[in-house]
Amino acid sequence: MNPIQAPLNEMRFLLEHVFDADATWQSMPALAGVADLDTATAILDEAARINAELVHPLNRSGDEEGVRFEDGAVLTPSGYKEAYNAFVEGGWVGLCGDPEYGGMGMPKMLGVLVDEIAYSACNAFNLYSSLTAGAALAINAHGTDELKAQYLPKLYSGEWAGAMDMTEPQAGSDLRNIRTRAEPQDDGSYLISGSKIFITGGDQDMTDNVVHLVLAKISGASSLSLFLVPKRLPDTDGNAGESNGVSVGSIEHKMGLKGSATCVMNFDSARGWLIGRENKGLACMFTMMNYERLAIGIQGLGSAQAAVQMATEYAKERLQGTAPGSANPSDAIIVHGDVRRMLLTIRTLTDAGRVLALDTGKQLDLAKFSDDAAVIEKASRYVGLLTPVAKAFLTDRGLDITIMAQQVFGGHGYIRETGIEQLVRDTRIAQIYEGTNGIQAIDFLGRKVCGDNLATLKAFVAEKLTTLEGESSKKRALEAGFSRFIEVASWINERKLANPSLINASAVEMLDAFGYLLYGLYHLTMAQVAGRAAPELASAKAQFCDFYFAKVLPRADALLTQVQAGDEVVMGIDESLL
Amino acid sequence: MNPIQAPLNEMRFLLEHVFDADATWQSMPALAGVADLDTATAILDEAARINAELVHPLNRSGDEEGVRFEDGAVLTPSGYKEAYNAFVEGGWVGLCGDPEYGGMGMPKMLGVLVDEIAYSACNAFNLYSSLTAGAALAINAHGTDELKAQYLPKLYSGEWAGAMDMTEPQAGSDLRNIRTRAEPQDDGSYLISGSKIFITGGDQDMTDNVVHLVLAKISGASSLSLFLVPKRLPDTDGNAGESNGVSVGSIEHKMGLKGSATCVMNFDSARGWLIGRENKGLACMFTMMNYERLAIGIQGLGSAQAAVQMATEYAKERLQGTAPGSANPSDAIIVHGDVRRMLLTIRTLTDAGRVLALDTGKQLDLAKFSDDAAVIEKASRYVGLLTPVAKAFLTDRGLDITIMAQQVFGGHGYIRETGIEQLVRDTRIAQIYEGTNGIQAIDFLGRKVCGDNLATLKAFVAEKLTTLEGESSKKRALEAGFSRFIEVASWINERKLANPSLINASAVEMLDAFGYLLYGLYHLTMAQVAGRAAPELASAKAQFCDFYFAKVLPRADALLTQVQAGDEVVMGIDESLL
Repeated sequence: MNPIQAPLNEMRFLLEHVFDADATWQSMPALAGVADLDTATAILDEAARINAELVHPLNRSGDEEGVRFEDGAVLTPSGYKEAYNAFVEGGWVGLCGDPEYGGMGMPKMLGVLVDEIAYSACNAFNLYSSLTAGAALAINAHGTDELKAQYLPKLYSGEWAGAMDMTEPQAGSDLRNIRTRAEPQDDGSYLISGSKIFITGGDQDMTDNVVHLVLAKISGASSLSLFLVPKRLPDTDGNAGESNGVSVGSIEHKMGLKGSATCVMNFDSARGWLIGRENKGLACMFTMMNYERLAIGIQGLGSAQAAVQMATEYAKERLQGTAPGSANPSDAIIVHGDVRRMLLTIRTLTDAGRVLALDTGKQLDLAKFSDDAAVIEKASRYVGLLTPVAKAFLTDRGLDITIMAQQVFGGHGYIRETGIEQLVRDTRIAQIYEGTNGIQAIDFLGRKVCGDNLATLKAFVAEKLTTLEGESSKKRALEAGFSRFIEVASWINERKLANPSLINASAVEMLDAFGYLLYGLYHLTMAQVAGRAAPELASAKAQFCDFYFAKVLPRADALLTQVQAGDEVVMGIDESLL
Repeated sequence: MNPIQAPLNEMRFLLEHVFDADATWQSMPALAGVADLDTATAILDEAARINAELVHPLNRSGDEEGVRFEDGAVLTPSGYKEAYNAFVEGGWVGLCGDPEYGGMGMPKMLGVLVDEIAYSACNAFNLYSSLTAGAALAINAHGTDELKAQYLPKLYSGEWAGAMDMTEPQAGSDLRNIRTRAEPQDDGSYLISGSKIFITGGDQDMTDNVVHLVLAKISGASSLSLFLVPKRLPDTDGNAGESNGVSVGSIEHKMGLKGSATCVMNFDSARGWLIGRENKGLACMFTMMNYERLAIGIQGLGSAQAAVQMATEYAKERLQGTAPGSANPSDAIIVHGDVRRMLLTIRTLTDAGRVLALDTGKQLDLAKFSDDAAVIEKASRYVGLLTPVAKAFLTDRGLDITIMAQQVFGGHGYIRETGIEQLVRDTRIAQIYEGTNGIQAIDFLGRKVCGDNLATLKAFVAEKLTTLEGESSKKRALEAGFSRFIEVASWINERKLANPSLINASAVEMLDAFGYLLYGLYHLTMAQVAGRAAPELASAKAQFCDFYFAKVLPRADALLTQVQAGDEVVMGIDESLL
């Protein structure tokens, strides 16, 4: 069983027909001549190959062996170092990086598909390069030209890795409580002191250097600033030189992601350089955060895709019971209605999830590469609206999907060697890190929906609905569903000042309702586009759409009903009764 | 943090006021004089103490260390053997056992609460004694007097353990494919040969002997028979004597339950004795299966209860963010609406789950102990209706609850030492073994609901609704909900012959819808009873009820809408498109 036969046909269909990628990319000067459908197809083919051949074989062994911490050093599982070096040589870290510093300058729409393939192959392995790409993004967006020239080529090439250092024991979801300090030096650098926890890829034995982006407070300040703090200082040739007061205190033992090092990092007067402006560290982080949050959403999507493939293959092979009227001694379990219901549920959620990832990626590309100010402004708002949905909904459904896929395996799904239980354990964290899904939902409802009194939400929904062709009961169902969603969101918006807990208490249900509606829209879009432009997929897409509307979409209405009950049932009860 | 402060006040409230246990027990001659509320309270107190002091300390170490297999022997984690011997000395294996053979003769209504406490303390540890009690039950129900005298005292005392040997590699959900053979011998015994997999507690190093109940086919037969096959044959003094051709081939490495041995068992001309009649093995297993399935449901409930306690304590202690308008630098996270929503969701699902467990236990008691044939007949049908719901709904919601509780912990929930991630891993199997929850749902809808054309369902629902007091919008909501459920079930029942896949494709949604409605009924019942008879609980119960109706119950309607879409969307799609 090979769980990472990447869905290349599906990806090509989405790029070519649903997103009209060539036209989209040609409309942006920085992408015209760089990205086109044929290049994208070749890159996806190669991503599928290298992840299948090089990365996926380490998935289970890395889980069994895990990362070790010995004498202050972090040791990755056997084979990681060799595979990592071969992987980064392919230029994958710099796929969407700035060409001025050695990146390939590809659009995020392509990046999300490559990320999906990589996470399908191995959640843990892909985090090292994903974090590195994220650090490069922040440095590119906010660093000085000197820092960019010094660090970006090393990061894009994979010679050095990157890490994000935000969390402290007392400062998780609430970063105001960060205690790490930065002392300004005469040469313009800072000395950073403090401890960080839960630092993914905080150290490892695969690269010469790790470049930490550290949130800290400049002495005397109460706001946060962002610093670049390398594990080893660059020498005069730009290579990793002397140590810099950055050390690993310990590593965490986790439910999953055992091949990924989760470190306690200690900074002891480590030399760092400001990224962006003083006391504006959070704003710098947030530039990057939209990309990172989407990337973590795609961890959920990649796990889901692997789970769908594994469960579907198993259901076609495993003989048990018979179909009604069958004369066989046993049939493959895919004949059973309940097994099919599970397979179709996880398939339709995964297929729509890929569209959400691409849609978010497209808005990121427009915001970054367009030369039309109006396009940039609108795309930026859509990025804001879609990012928390992509992060939370892709990872929440990602866990649902891996668990349902595991159920298809029966008892064999609980055994480690089958591999499906590892997907459940590995993907579980994606609902938590990079901002818990509760935080995402509050960002979505509080800032993105209510922040501009629903203006962005209404514009986005109206625009999406106009892309649907003709008239149909499904289109009317979506119009009614979104209309109800907007009505409930308006009801919340009107009460947000008088009742400041209403958003917090309703946020997850609202994000989920929006996600289910949006997936319905994506399914109808795919069915319509395939019917018109991809006859080989038309039947499947139409039937997946029928299934989704019948068997999944009704959840949205229930969620909105729950929200309309208000928050008194949540907030009214005395804590002592819990 | 101690996750097993058993909810003794809640249990007492349910026994005394909701189930009127004293009156119920006095109505059954075999229980009158044996079970009363004071005895039950004393037993629950002691169960809470011994599980907290003796068993729970092994929960995490057993998970870290796991069961080992060395030189053909199964070695349990450090401390298991000592704790097990101390545990069984308390008579817990024989709690509900037959007093004629050394059991305590207590009702299952008490047994389910003791089981919940034990599973809360340690999923893995409790399986050994739970399987032993299950084996004793089957022997007592169908074994000869000689076998009963020989084996039951050893099982009730815990000196010997029990195991159920059903699954084979090619025979999981479909037991017709079992290949294990039984060769009749002149002395009335049989020689058993074959291999079984996934045998929980198939062997260990804690007891002198393991008594296997093995499903096999007598040579020449196509139906299954049930055999008692001890690992070691009793000697003339009735103690464990010579070996009996029963050996362990290997043990499984699993997602969780690492302290529980899951064995491949090999039977090589092992001597066995028939339990029940030849070729009627499945019927014998099913006697026991109702108890076993309820017990596994309670694994889900026990995990849920532990998770609720852990998450609630954490939410009251963890400082992060502030409540709207708060002047504190940080508040405990329980002030946040989304955290409260999670805590109330898991609390209300767990509280109602306990009522479902007790309700099922009560019907088992009536069916077993009543001297009124009409009572026995009705209770047996209610047992049939409720058992698959208790098994599937308690374990499906059990996983949901542990996952939501884990989310309350944020990043700390993903770290092993916090303990909440172990609950997720340990309880996951309960949705699979003892008949997958899909199988439970098909049993529920196909056999229990449609099998008698809804007669039992309608009688049960009508009886339950009449127990509700007065008039209220909640009561009307339940009446409408159950009425719609019956309507949809009738629609399925009318089509079951013409469309034989409809039941299979709709079963899980129907079981879930019924479960959510039933939980609504239990919450309204608790609120009404507390309001009348337990003023100290009245406010909490009323508010939990409000929350459940507003924030959870709407799921039932969505599920019924999904079912009404029919099964064409499930069955119609060509397999090749998946």
